[in-house]
Amino acid sequence: MDVDKEFFSNITSRERAIFEGAITMGALFHQFVGTPISRDTVESLEKAMKESLELQPAIEKVEAKINRQKLEEVMTGFDYTCVNGDMLDIKIYSKVDDVLAVIRIKFIEELNYPLMFVEDIIE
Amino acid sequence: MDVDKEFFSNITSRERAIFEGAITMGALFHQFVGTPISRDTVESLEKAMKESLELQPAIEKVEAKINRQKLEEVMTGFDYTCVNGDMLDIKIYSKVDDVLAVIRIKFIEELNYPLMFVEDIIE
Amino acid sequence: MDVDKEFFSNITSRERAIFEGAITMGALFHQFVGTPISRDTVESLEKAMKESLELQPAIEKVEAKINRQKLEEVMTGFDYTCVNGDMLDIKIYSKVDDVLAVIRIKFIEELNYPLMFVEDIIE
Amino acid sequence: MDVDKEFFSNITSRERAIFEGAITMGALFHQFVGTPISRDTVESLEKAMKESLELQPAIEKVEAKINRQKLEEVMTGFDYTCVNGDMLDIKIYSKVDDVLAVIRIKFIEELNYPLMFVEDIIE
Repeated sequence: MDVDKEFFSNITSRERAIFEGAITMGALFHQFVGTPISRDTVESLEKAMKESLELQPAIEKVEAKINRQKLEEVMTGFDYTCVNGDMLDIKIYSKVDDVLAVIRIKFIEELNYPLMFVEDIIE
Repeated sequence: MDVDKEFFSNITSRERAIFEGAITMGALFHQFVGTPISRDTVESLEKAMKESLELQPAIEKVEAKINRQKLEEVMTGFDYTCVNGDMLDIKIYSKVDDVLAVIRIKFIEELNYPLMFVEDIIE
Repeated sequence: MDVDKEFFSNITSRERAIFEGAITMGALFHQFVGTPISRDTVESLEKAMKESLELQPAIEKVEAKINRQKLEEVMTGFDYTCVNGDMLDIKIYSKVDDVLAVIRIKFIEELNYPLMFVEDIIE
Repeated sequence: MDVDKEFFSNITSRERAIFEGAITMGALFHQFVGTPISRDTVESLEKAMKESLELQPAIEKVEAKINRQKLEEVMTGFDYTCVNGDMLDIKIYSKVDDVLAVIRIKFIEELNYPLMFVEDIIE
């Protein structure tokens, strides 16, 4: 079965790069929100986020950062907390043919909301 | 802040419809996979999937179906199991300006894989 | 295979009631935190939480409430937010032989933390 | 606030060790099931599971293993799959006062089910 021909011939390479990157951003958010986290485990979690999401179709690279300041803001008296969307600062690079899309999530102060958007597209 | 102008002026309405629908499909999959499910609770879970994901930006409608046959295939001796990706049969309708995108996940037998793709775009 | 004899003969009925209820509380928290939620979808989500977790072994009943005030505190400008642990107010009733354990999660102001504990045991 | 006195004086140290370990086992399962995984990312995910769950109250140590054979059984044509409960082989050590409880999940062939149980208690 030719998956590309069967299922993706109705959209352009640019649209598919956006599609695959967006799927992966939604996945990352909803898979990892809720995970216990502390100052000491930030890095192993960033690594697991990066490595697991890079497995998805068309994903070239994932840069996963937890915002340390946002982490501190919700730290509990037990010296750990749970990942929430506000602390995610992530770039997902998806590539289809010659098009590279950069999908981003970052917290936007004015909206009080972690916004997902297409940061860049390089053709 | 004009979110559309600030963050989405670099993509077309058609691209944004794809983007928002894809985010929501990735979200739905990774939020609900793992949830305990039985023959008796399928409907309340389908409803919760539908209602929660329809909240996301640009989502017009979500049709969430659990494939009953796939559900039976993984039923345990305790008369329940956990949601997996193979049993998801979902259509997400996202609309931006005059463009309606239909994002789909369904299990593709030949790939042994629940594929996400753009089923239709109506402009 | 006699599961009880094989795997649970090393603990009392009281201990097993606590065990099964605690498993289910941990499950509920980490399954549903992150789910999109609004004022209008609270009830369908409470129902899905209740019905899905009542499927787990030894669970008699689940009373799942989202604290509406806590929900409002994190509402975004898009009129929805994501479930977090602070808004969960849940009682899980697990029964093993003649012992009924009531496992609770509720937000404790003084700790700034949603605490899980054994609220009651009836023998 | 004396949390122990306020919320845990109704159960023994042994019961609380079981309680805390069980919470964490339920959490681990429902947090990580669904995560994309391949042969190459098993180790970073095991590390993230271990480190994040060791943060929870009373948890001394988490030994998190993904069963490689179970992983292969569900490998897709895209060389990755999603974590399911069947591939989890995990020991959680929780300690309260002088009591150490070992909570285990492993796949039981005869039940076609990943069973959670109290493997050992050392007083």
